[in-house]
Amino acid sequence: MTVAAIIPAAGRGLRLGGGLPKAFRPLGGVPLFVHAVRALRASQYVESVIVVTLPDRLAEVGSLLGPAATVVCGGESRHASVAAGLAVLPPPVDVVLIHDAARPLVPPGVVDAVVEAVLAGASAAVPVLPVVDTLKTVDGAGRVVRTIPRDTIRAVQTPQGFRRSVLVRAHAEADPAAPATDDAALVEALGIPVMTVPGSPTAIKITYSVDLLLAEALLHADLAAEPAE
Amino acid sequence: MTVAAIIPAAGRGLRLGGGLPKAFRPLGGVPLFVHAVRALRASQYVESVIVVTLPDRLAEVGSLLGPAATVVCGGESRHASVAAGLAVLPPPVDVVLIHDAARPLVPPGVVDAVVEAVLAGASAAVPVLPVVDTLKTVDGAGRVVRTIPRDTIRAVQTPQGFRRSVLVRAHAEADPAAPATDDAALVEALGIPVMTVPGSPTAIKITYSVDLLLAEALLHADLAAEPAE
Repeated sequence: MTVAAIIPAAGRGLRLGGGLPKAFRPLGGVPLFVHAVRALRASQYVESVIVVTLPDRLAEVGSLLGPAATVVCGGESRHASVAAGLAVLPPPVDVVLIHDAARPLVPPGVVDAVVEAVLAGASAAVPVLPVVDTLKTVDGAGRVVRTIPRDTIRAVQTPQGFRRSVLVRAHAEADPAAPATDDAALVEALGIPVMTVPGSPTAIKITYSVDLLLAEALLHADLAAEPAE
Repeated sequence: MTVAAIIPAAGRGLRLGGGLPKAFRPLGGVPLFVHAVRALRASQYVESVIVVTLPDRLAEVGSLLGPAATVVCGGESRHASVAAGLAVLPPPVDVVLIHDAARPLVPPGVVDAVVEAVLAGASAAVPVLPVVDTLKTVDGAGRVVRTIPRDTIRAVQTPQGFRRSVLVRAHAEADPAAPATDDAALVEALGIPVMTVPGSPTAIKITYSVDLLLAEALLHADLAAEPAE
């Protein structure tokens, strides 16, 4: 089986600050998407990586990544960007990972576990962790509606792994007017089972500026290279 | 109004490692519960802090905290420990915060916001953040059941703040056989409204050993002293 990964990184979101789209924010002097490519290529299974970027960033991203990845232009939405990546998958690829540039330090053990679940027969597999915080639903006025039992709830990380045919079908049949929070949800909508594998606390998602500080600490401690807990 | 805080820190859990109960794990050379006391006392409103600890740790905790907190023995459960704290609240206290020693770096702005919500009339208030990760429910075999819409879900932090009479009643009427994940849930069970206020990404919960590394980075960056985002 041949494994490829797609990183949709064409978002223009400047919410994280620094005047840069999130994927371009530096971590240890290197943009997040470059870390993400390195993290995927550290897996023993990943043979090629496709980065989907903004048209005006194509040359810059291409020169930063060199032969480590194929770089293509993205669409106006995350859905369109994943589609752009799927469109350039080489024919032999039969397992596809979708990874978030905002998770620059995912350990290779997590990537391997996702791939191995699909190689073992799963149509789709996602890395998960138990939920650490108490979760509550709130109403429009910010009042608590109820506390959610969290025993059966998992926080989902990336990369998410798919049998290629399953992901292509899920994306083709998705409702563009109802954007999914992740690619696995599109597969779930088809009634196709999605497996879970253990994620890692070091695969943090960069959301707030403080997360970059935490990621720098991880980078220096080189914990990011350790196996999943 | 007089505001006091209780830190139930009598857990024997060694899951975090280091051969120590979590509250005693050092962060920057200082146990987590000491940071938690400092964080609460940094609020302009908190007049007294009660730390509930293990009987065999009472002298050690007392000497580490000195006049910064009242130290009492805890019970066998978190519920019993909070009850032990409530039992020694000075009579004038009318607002009670319950804080988790595993959140050593909660910014004073978050503590203030919780207190201010109760001072403004709320029976109970909890600091919350939007949920960053996609959430899915899983079955016993680790298969995804469904993706949970997270727009109305919040991750709950501490301290949680309560009008004293409300918390005392909620604890008295709680079912000890069905331990709640947090104190606010006991209030919700009475049908009493719980408000939310903005939490902070720096109020991280120490769950995995990697979280200590992240907390050290925050400590050095002194970001923990910044207002809530």
